[in-house]
Amino acid sequence: MFVERENALYAELQFADFAEAWGFMTSVAILAEKANHHPEWSNVYNTVKIKLTTHDAGNIVTDKDRNLARSIESLYSRYSA
Amino acid sequence: MFVERENALYAELQFADFAEAWGFMTSVAILAEKANHHPEWSNVYNTVKIKLTTHDAGNIVTDKDRNLARSIESLYSRYSA
Amino acid sequence: MFVERENALYAELQFADFAEAWGFMTSVAILAEKANHHPEWSNVYNTVKIKLTTHDAGNIVTDKDRNLARSIESLYSRYSA
Amino acid sequence: MFVERENALYAELQFADFAEAWGFMTSVAILAEKANHHPEWSNVYNTVKIKLTTHDAGNIVTDKDRNLARSIESLYSRYSA
Repeated sequence: MFVERENALYAELQFADFAEAWGFMTSVAILAEKANHHPEWSNVYNTVKIKLTTHDAGNIVTDKDRNLARSIESLYSRYSA
Repeated sequence: MFVERENALYAELQFADFAEAWGFMTSVAILAEKANHHPEWSNVYNTVKIKLTTHDAGNIVTDKDRNLARSIESLYSRYSA
Repeated sequence: MFVERENALYAELQFADFAEAWGFMTSVAILAEKANHHPEWSNVYNTVKIKLTTHDAGNIVTDKDRNLARSIESLYSRYSA
Repeated sequence: MFVERENALYAELQFADFAEAWGFMTSVAILAEKANHHPEWSNVYNTVKIKLTTHDAGNIVTDKDRNLARSIESLYSRYSA
């Protein structure tokens, strides 16, 4: 789901509606704070765009990004089942 | 999922973990405010208990409760798929 | 707080930390769904950027945008008090 | 704000409305998961009841509870300012 380009991981996710999109983002927000690694992300209605990169490492993709991406993908797979 | 007893609808839902439970509750919160009908609900870790009754109608079960219960069940069915 | 330019209302808000920013956005999400009018918005850590425009009216600023902007400003004023 | 009785810390908080209450709870949810210490809590419209106790320590009040209580009080003081 996430693709790597220009030293960041990107995903664009679709949901049934805004309420579902926001619930998903809130779950991700909880995971992100726990990992102390926060996405750059945006939302319009049922669409969520996520960019992951590690600023402290000089804006490159690190294991912090890959681990958070995996958590997000795992959560999303349960939504779209 | 919801069962009716003593003039209210009750459900107890389980999730994979706290982050997923809270994301679900946040989706329900959005639906509830939109319907202008709010649950009495509680959370401990991955468990969510919901009680629906219509105070304005004298604490009985009305279509407001049944409609919100249906929306919650529909959302939950996508989580547990 | 919101400024109008190029047929949209824009605001950029700062919070104490990510947890506070996300709590604020969740309150706004609830208000937005109730008004059936959703922002284009993004978040990085404690910063929230919001763009309001009315797509159905041809991407111009309407009272829907002004009303939601006012609600957001009112909520934000309580945070930063 | 929190009071200790029967081996737990209790608080009952009021907000302007449901949207504000839920935003607050979502901030607390993020802090709780980060601390890996979750409240027993309930919500009805603009009222939030929170109980903190440490199950792993045999349902007594520990520093985990006191620390989370302090974070919640700090956050709430900004809302009601």
